[in-house]
Amino acid sequence: MNSVDELTTALTALHIPSTHVTVGVANLIASHKDLRTLLVNRRLPEHGWSDVQIQHVLYTMATLDTNNKRSGSSSSDDSGSSRWCGVGEREGRVYSALVSSRHFGLSHGVGRSGDIAEPQPKALGSTVLAKLTLCLVLDAVRRGSGLHPQTAAKSGILLPLCTGMSMALVLGTLRQLQDNHQTSANAAIKPYRNIVLWSRIDQKSCFKAIQSAGLECVVVPTRLAGDAVVTDLDAFQASLLTYGDRVLAVVTTTSCFAPRVPDQVDAVARLCAEQCVPHVINNAYGLQSSDTSKLLNRACAVGRVDAIVCSTDKNFMVPIGGAIVLSPDESLIQNVGKVYAGRASASPMLDLFITLCSMGLRGYQQLLTSRRILLPTFTERLKEVANKYGERVLECRTNCISFGVTLDGLVRPPRQDEDDVAYRTSVSRDVSSLGAMLFQRCVSGTRVVPRGTVQRMGGMEFCGFGSSHDAYPHAYLTAACAIGLTASEGDDFFTRLDQTLHEFQKRQRRRA
Amino acid sequence: MNSVDELTTALTALHIPSTHVTVGVANLIASHKDLRTLLVNRRLPEHGWSDVQIQHVLYTMATLDTNNKRSGSSSSDDSGSSRWCGVGEREGRVYSALVSSRHFGLSHGVGRSGDIAEPQPKALGSTVLAKLTLCLVLDAVRRGSGLHPQTAAKSGILLPLCTGMSMALVLGTLRQLQDNHQTSANAAIKPYRNIVLWSRIDQKSCFKAIQSAGLECVVVPTRLAGDAVVTDLDAFQASLLTYGDRVLAVVTTTSCFAPRVPDQVDAVARLCAEQCVPHVINNAYGLQSSDTSKLLNRACAVGRVDAIVCSTDKNFMVPIGGAIVLSPDESLIQNVGKVYAGRASASPMLDLFITLCSMGLRGYQQLLTSRRILLPTFTERLKEVANKYGERVLECRTNCISFGVTLDGLVRPPRQDEDDVAYRTSVSRDVSSLGAMLFQRCVSGTRVVPRGTVQRMGGMEFCGFGSSHDAYPHAYLTAACAIGLTASEGDDFFTRLDQTLHEFQKRQRRRA
Amino acid sequence: MNSVDELTTALTALHIPSTHVTVGVANLIASHKDLRTLLVNRRLPEHGWSDVQIQHVLYTMATLDTNNKRSGSSSSDDSGSSRWCGVGEREGRVYSALVSSRHFGLSHGVGRSGDIAEPQPKALGSTVLAKLTLCLVLDAVRRGSGLHPQTAAKSGILLPLCTGMSMALVLGTLRQLQDNHQTSANAAIKPYRNIVLWSRIDQKSCFKAIQSAGLECVVVPTRLAGDAVVTDLDAFQASLLTYGDRVLAVVTTTSCFAPRVPDQVDAVARLCAEQCVPHVINNAYGLQSSDTSKLLNRACAVGRVDAIVCSTDKNFMVPIGGAIVLSPDESLIQNVGKVYAGRASASPMLDLFITLCSMGLRGYQQLLTSRRILLPTFTERLKEVANKYGERVLECRTNCISFGVTLDGLVRPPRQDEDDVAYRTSVSRDVSSLGAMLFQRCVSGTRVVPRGTVQRMGGMEFCGFGSSHDAYPHAYLTAACAIGLTASEGDDFFTRLDQTLHEFQKRQRRRA
Amino acid sequence: MNSVDELTTALTALHIPSTHVTVGVANLIASHKDLRTLLVNRRLPEHGWSDVQIQHVLYTMATLDTNNKRSGSSSSDDSGSSRWCGVGEREGRVYSALVSSRHFGLSHGVGRSGDIAEPQPKALGSTVLAKLTLCLVLDAVRRGSGLHPQTAAKSGILLPLCTGMSMALVLGTLRQLQDNHQTSANAAIKPYRNIVLWSRIDQKSCFKAIQSAGLECVVVPTRLAGDAVVTDLDAFQASLLTYGDRVLAVVTTTSCFAPRVPDQVDAVARLCAEQCVPHVINNAYGLQSSDTSKLLNRACAVGRVDAIVCSTDKNFMVPIGGAIVLSPDESLIQNVGKVYAGRASASPMLDLFITLCSMGLRGYQQLLTSRRILLPTFTERLKEVANKYGERVLECRTNCISFGVTLDGLVRPPRQDEDDVAYRTSVSRDVSSLGAMLFQRCVSGTRVVPRGTVQRMGGMEFCGFGSSHDAYPHAYLTAACAIGLTASEGDDFFTRLDQTLHEFQKRQRRRA
Repeated sequence: MNSVDELTTALTALHIPSTHVTVGVANLIASHKDLRTLLVNRRLPEHGWSDVQIQHVLYTMATLDTNNKRSGSSSSDDSGSSRWCGVGEREGRVYSALVSSRHFGLSHGVGRSGDIAEPQPKALGSTVLAKLTLCLVLDAVRRGSGLHPQTAAKSGILLPLCTGMSMALVLGTLRQLQDNHQTSANAAIKPYRNIVLWSRIDQKSCFKAIQSAGLECVVVPTRLAGDAVVTDLDAFQASLLTYGDRVLAVVTTTSCFAPRVPDQVDAVARLCAEQCVPHVINNAYGLQSSDTSKLLNRACAVGRVDAIVCSTDKNFMVPIGGAIVLSPDESLIQNVGKVYAGRASASPMLDLFITLCSMGLRGYQQLLTSRRILLPTFTERLKEVANKYGERVLECRTNCISFGVTLDGLVRPPRQDEDDVAYRTSVSRDVSSLGAMLFQRCVSGTRVVPRGTVQRMGGMEFCGFGSSHDAYPHAYLTAACAIGLTASEGDDFFTRLDQTLHEFQKRQRRRA
Repeated sequence: MNSVDELTTALTALHIPSTHVTVGVANLIASHKDLRTLLVNRRLPEHGWSDVQIQHVLYTMATLDTNNKRSGSSSSDDSGSSRWCGVGEREGRVYSALVSSRHFGLSHGVGRSGDIAEPQPKALGSTVLAKLTLCLVLDAVRRGSGLHPQTAAKSGILLPLCTGMSMALVLGTLRQLQDNHQTSANAAIKPYRNIVLWSRIDQKSCFKAIQSAGLECVVVPTRLAGDAVVTDLDAFQASLLTYGDRVLAVVTTTSCFAPRVPDQVDAVARLCAEQCVPHVINNAYGLQSSDTSKLLNRACAVGRVDAIVCSTDKNFMVPIGGAIVLSPDESLIQNVGKVYAGRASASPMLDLFITLCSMGLRGYQQLLTSRRILLPTFTERLKEVANKYGERVLECRTNCISFGVTLDGLVRPPRQDEDDVAYRTSVSRDVSSLGAMLFQRCVSGTRVVPRGTVQRMGGMEFCGFGSSHDAYPHAYLTAACAIGLTASEGDDFFTRLDQTLHEFQKRQRRRA
Repeated sequence: MNSVDELTTALTALHIPSTHVTVGVANLIASHKDLRTLLVNRRLPEHGWSDVQIQHVLYTMATLDTNNKRSGSSSSDDSGSSRWCGVGEREGRVYSALVSSRHFGLSHGVGRSGDIAEPQPKALGSTVLAKLTLCLVLDAVRRGSGLHPQTAAKSGILLPLCTGMSMALVLGTLRQLQDNHQTSANAAIKPYRNIVLWSRIDQKSCFKAIQSAGLECVVVPTRLAGDAVVTDLDAFQASLLTYGDRVLAVVTTTSCFAPRVPDQVDAVARLCAEQCVPHVINNAYGLQSSDTSKLLNRACAVGRVDAIVCSTDKNFMVPIGGAIVLSPDESLIQNVGKVYAGRASASPMLDLFITLCSMGLRGYQQLLTSRRILLPTFTERLKEVANKYGERVLECRTNCISFGVTLDGLVRPPRQDEDDVAYRTSVSRDVSSLGAMLFQRCVSGTRVVPRGTVQRMGGMEFCGFGSSHDAYPHAYLTAACAIGLTASEGDDFFTRLDQTLHEFQKRQRRRA
Repeated sequence: MNSVDELTTALTALHIPSTHVTVGVANLIASHKDLRTLLVNRRLPEHGWSDVQIQHVLYTMATLDTNNKRSGSSSSDDSGSSRWCGVGEREGRVYSALVSSRHFGLSHGVGRSGDIAEPQPKALGSTVLAKLTLCLVLDAVRRGSGLHPQTAAKSGILLPLCTGMSMALVLGTLRQLQDNHQTSANAAIKPYRNIVLWSRIDQKSCFKAIQSAGLECVVVPTRLAGDAVVTDLDAFQASLLTYGDRVLAVVTTTSCFAPRVPDQVDAVARLCAEQCVPHVINNAYGLQSSDTSKLLNRACAVGRVDAIVCSTDKNFMVPIGGAIVLSPDESLIQNVGKVYAGRASASPMLDLFITLCSMGLRGYQQLLTSRRILLPTFTERLKEVANKYGERVLECRTNCISFGVTLDGLVRPPRQDEDDVAYRTSVSRDVSSLGAMLFQRCVSGTRVVPRGTVQRMGGMEFCGFGSSHDAYPHAYLTAACAIGLTASEGDDFFTRLDQTLHEFQKRQRRRA
């Protein structure tokens, strides 16, 4: 229908009472208006849309792509019915009707060979969805998560990559930007910025990302502050001095497992500003915490932040597969798009579009609020269970997502004849088994960390692996109160944790 | 978007090159034009539509209904986001997102309490779809199947009922129409038209339909014409004389299993015209055969035909659940709609809409053609297999869908000491087992009919049940070359039939 | 996989750690156990299932049908890959992949030509689903709605028909059962039970259903009891005397719009028991009210109830299309199945299966509870709005779903020169316009009933149509607090009602 | 059901005839057997599976993941019904039912933080699917495309990345492998292998990929051989000498637009073997051509090939988003998996799994055959159209996917007063406009290349951009006969090409 008037005329000609037509068409007009508002304002709708409305928009978008004017998928009619004919090497043809339907007919992905953010001539609909989704997610992190629209969340790009690979892409972009200041001929001989200073956090993907980018990772150790494992600013300063202009970037982290707490990214940002060193923040699942957003805003205000990398699945409850890179610097973001060479799956973006439209601003805020409301109970009940077994919750105030419980007292004492090494090894194995016990009781997501584990990663050795500190003085387990957790799920967890600790204690006593 | 111009403006503002926008929007305009053509012409599109285009239309229609302006199904946001509020006893609410999605958000069904063809104020989209689907199916039976647009297929109604129940509804309508000519006070005492003359066909649903309608079925026997079981016109004439003005209607059948052939509905129609008796034709799966359509056209031309009842699933390859009643008489059709008291599932209509849009006229014609092209091979190969075992294909020329093969010689001869009754019973059981043997070899749809089976149905006894004749002289099996059969399926059938007959023969010889 | 052990072996051979395999397979075992429990106990699961689990079961069922061993829908591969070959006239072939997918591959419908409850040889999965769904819905009405498992809800049948047509089918069954006691030859001359006594309720479908069944409807008038329109037991007794053995059945109603209240079905049941007359109850949307269930249980305990007809969409939040007929008499139910001649759409049953599995007993109970909790606020706020405009809520205590508000004072007084008829006509039109005003404000489901409307239906005239009483003394509007209504929807309604009455009052004053 | 016996027992208890149960359960057993065969043999099924069978497997897999034992998505029941409780930061929770359903409940993606090929403890089903899909695609390229199972297609990895990014990942892996032979301390000062020799091909993504990987691209020019643009082996040899041990890898291409033909990868492989330099082949859409497969096999046989990168969308008709990296060297493949740091979207893998199961080996072979069969007609008709306008098809024998047509004569001659530069610029613009003209006629995928275009890319300048040669002597347009092209699409193309050239000629004559 070219216009609502035409539709009204056509429907009335079907002998449908004009009052019915008017009411029904008013619904369509309202829906068109919603889409128009979305396209013009590019902000989350206040209230979530229905699945019907979302799919109406998706199929409208699919119609804008060139591959969807063919005859029915199940048709054996091969008689010239198609509006488009394609004689390229890639024409968005999809073999399986099932596959086509799960993509709502959108098959061209996003981006072009030169830039993942570039519009595709053959795929207007996919292009529009990609642009809109970026706008919606920026709106969500601004009005929902509370990142500052003029600094931390000034510009952004969606990548169909996990946090780690996105980190690698950002670091690759930074390297390329500096390379442009050198003649390539000298690159190999001149002292070359290839070092990344990384505030230690015991999680593989970020560390590997640095190596994947072809860069060298220098681990900046953390320090203890009570129970908490915190940023060692002195060590940072020292490392910056030591490596000087070989430092390509500093990488910090704001979402992590207890007892590690978010890095003091404001202080680090100040250092980076002083030293003119790029600063990339891994904020994988920090968007769900307003405290973290405030910390990031402060970092941008007082110092240098080049990019903030966030997972889409961990923050917005979509399947794994995407990341959003935020930056106060629009040109950096544009370069990230150019470094991703080629088209990419539109699937993670599509999930996000559907989810954000379905949530609306209110729905997203409500999810954030629900988590915040669960927090006091969560920590209170964790304390109760811990105390029941003579343990305690680790004091890590600035980490308000992940919480740790000591396991020191639950462990059996050494036997008389047992030497220290044998005891530690045996006990460490026992503690680890607690994780398996919980998993067998259908508790997922806890981490059990014994003392003094050593782990090799990318040619380096990490002592006390898991706690992000060489000599963390406790064995412990962690549990997170993350977005999407329900009260009843929490209840189940505490019941099962109690049972499991009880049984673990019994086993330990038996083994004593 | 109120208009394409608005959309173009909005997309261009997203920094998409205007040439891309133009091409993409041209696709949308073409799609709108297709919908407009559909609404205005109400005919099958020449070529089938893609699933994307079909779903785009379905979600547009769903938007026209009142129940689809609620927040996302998965949202727990209960904060006044809905455009509509419903305080009736039935508001199209759907509990399960999965259920809602399989109906594309359409939940109001079709029709109103007084008439299944009436528009629903709350559900403009469902109403439009119902009206369009009727137009499309009428177009398909006219331009595809070849029924005459001014007689046999002049008007029609879609019912979410099987052929049998639709037959009952039509007969009920005929009864009600005649009742209107009597004062209800006299109804019980006056000679009352409650007899239906039914040209015998051994299939339960039509016979039961007559009884379900509260009418009395008088079976008009068939007669043999060579191998074929044909209409006994003399018996019809006699019955019409016998029952006189107690006859409410005559029911004939044009799609049936061999050796029964389509009734001579033209001759019967002539009789009905002479006697002023309504004539209802069961054409369950006859739309796929152009010969049958010609027969029906002739019947309408030379005599009286009140209604032709056709299954939607058997003719259009949709799941079971619908029927189309055709009639040269528009007012009868309108009355059928009024006799169905209440709303009905829109699901069968929705299946048909999707299927017809997906086929287009060409796709439907191609299906009909494919069947016609398979026919000669099908009968040829059936003959080959039959001959191999000393049997033959029954000569039933006017049945060009179902074919019979005699089984007389395959059966073991009587043993010396075996009395006739015991022999017949034993052999009859053996013949029946052939059907099970085929089914176990994953051949479905064959019917194996031994000689002389007696079956009670609704208080009556039918001899020679299955062959529609009291004394059919052969045991036989039937197989159909129906719409949708593929060449390879046919190949498989003949291979397995051959194997099965071979084994059956061996077993019989062993038992001899 | 034939067994879980085989699966475990196969997965381990894929080099997946055996602990992962064990945990994952445990999920599958738990899921199989759920299905087994469902098949063995045939009761609602305590807690609702996930959509994944439901779909897993649906595709398992589809695999049991014969039509689903063909090659991919989008495949052009026609080379003998099918396990089954079909040479019947109906083989469950589905043209459109989109259609097939919305039925989860189930295309055979339910039932057979002779009986809608009969198993289908070609479609084991569809058969199982149909049987299970019936068991689940019986469990829901017993343990959820509170109907007595040994009387009111002893046995039941699901029909893919609306309430009205189901009523017609039940009445047709009753007629057929009595016919079996007569020789068909005498049927036309003997005094014949063809009268249905119907406690007046102004809703078209039930009344038409009686006529559709070919029966004569004798309207038993209601009487006023305060504001409420109630069953006139004396009139019933009188009618039973008058029509004697010409009465086939009595039809009453337990879910209705205010000011009509549920019929005193217990008292009527007692009358029916005394007179040996079948008693059919229209309980369209009464399952959502425990008071109604208690009333029905009482009726079964003290008198005669032959069938209770309930809508599935109105009670279980599924799309329109199904009904459940309940009966203390198993043999009646079996006969209803036989009267529906032929196969039927499985779609309404499928919706119900998904919905009931998705709800679980808890989910259904919660829906019922939510409605009950909203009730006091709903009536309270209705009173507030009514009082604000000098009107009041009608006192109809036993109707706890639908509520009425008088509109008497809002209407303008007669002008001096205006004669009575002109005034009444004009005011009646004005009152009706209030419904349109609400609809334009996106309020659906209210009914506005002016005084003294006359309506013809099936050859009869009904005075005071809408209120189910010849001389109801008020104009009024009704609103229902039905299952699925949310608090926010209620809020919206009262706000808009207030605004609309305000404007209506202004308009009336202007016209005075 | 733990076993088929249990199911049989349970179904029989539902009063379903045991013969029906046997037949239906046999279907399920057959389906289980298919799955078992798939898991054990890990090869493409001979014939494609139905969508029902595929979805049955997908939901079985989803059941193995930990996130799918929650109550129904649409349920508001938050009362402890879940089997699993998750207290990690990422629990596979999905907000939108629509999103969940498009992933069949699979939300955990693939891989773990350290390795994209690693099994996930929480997601057995996703893990199994990922492993199976890899096996299926390897089987497809071996038995379908014809790559040698012991060399070219010995091992492989699926990446949810486009070809370009996959190329970057492979190069990154090669760099990392060599780094392991150096102490990281020396890395910056020692002569460092950071040069990639790239046989020129004018397509952005591969070139950018090299830069994205932080490496330096040295362009090895091509040479003319008749019309064809071919590998300059001498230039390769020279470059290898020049850059010596600074060369990290050689990159060649086997699928390209005419007049570029596939690189002589066998000869290059021999050079690489001699020089001990890794050799990576971009075979983006070459799997559809058996000639290309033979070339690749030969290269592996006679020389060094480290990796072959192929697009999944271009070869298997799935939406954009994945690549398969093949290698004769299993350890390289394992390292590629480790360089992708983190989890990834399972969506591209899922599309491929569905598609390959849906195709089966036969379906895939048929697609390849269809393309081969279309080829002679395609080139024949291209010649006809070309000749009609005095042009010719470029002779590029070894490119059997893309074809070029000269445009030299169609272009207007220079005007008398026009200087050479102005003429060339004007004509170049004109030629380019031909592409737009075709696109406006809904022909997508042609490339129109004027003579002498200069393009800057990543700091370098490419003359004659588009033709992969500095001084290609013709303007031309290309069209591809790629997998999935239908005969009717081809017909449409030639008709429209003819019309467009006709109009272009007219325009040029007007401008002359």
